[in-house]
Amino acid sequence: MVEREAPYWAVIFTAVRRAKPGDGYAAMNETLFSRVEEQDGFLGYDNYTREDGAGVTISYWESEAAIAAWKSEARHRAAQVKGQTDWYQWYTVEIAQISRVYGFTRPLEREAE
Amino acid sequence: MVEREAPYWAVIFTAVRRAKPGDGYAAMNETLFSRVEEQDGFLGYDNYTREDGAGVTISYWESEAAIAAWKSEARHRAAQVKGQTDWYQWYTVEIAQISRVYGFTRPLEREAE
Repeated sequence: MVEREAPYWAVIFTAVRRAKPGDGYAAMNETLFSRVEEQDGFLGYDNYTREDGAGVTISYWESEAAIAAWKSEARHRAAQVKGQTDWYQWYTVEIAQISRVYGFTRPLEREAE
Repeated sequence: MVEREAPYWAVIFTAVRRAKPGDGYAAMNETLFSRVEEQDGFLGYDNYTREDGAGVTISYWESEAAIAAWKSEARHRAAQVKGQTDWYQWYTVEIAQISRVYGFTRPLEREAE
């Protein structure tokens, strides 16, 4: 999630990794996460992985054009190729417009006396 | 993800739980996941949790009306109240329309000879 009024955009990247130590995934992942921070229109991301190898990364964007620009970024394109040759058993990319957002934050609690 | 052509809808529920054994969360969660399967317009869901207590559930829907109907379902409403009184430190609900989806599935591989 991001602290922002709707509308904004999200990319839901759901994937199952192949377990291959030394396949360059970790290094590329680190490079990509540092590069994406510099992309115009990038708002943030959340990443969750499960022990079964499934994971989801939700990245947030100001516009669909910003998503398209990141998709064609050079290092990201190289990663997309490696994703298909080496890293993923399968993945799905869903492009979404967030039309509404609401939430809850617990008020600070007084210590028991 | 769901096996479906866009457009469809998603609800991205991001939350941090409070660690309180015996707070009824697990039982309610099981009840809700069995009830949601019967909701009109429900397409499926993915759930990921992290060791730090953060988690995301992405549920998929045919329409925004189906999302609204689930939000007002009686047991789900009771859960929403318990969520605020007991279960969550914070949560965010994002309502999204998936406008495009694509993916990759690795072809079956021949065993090395």
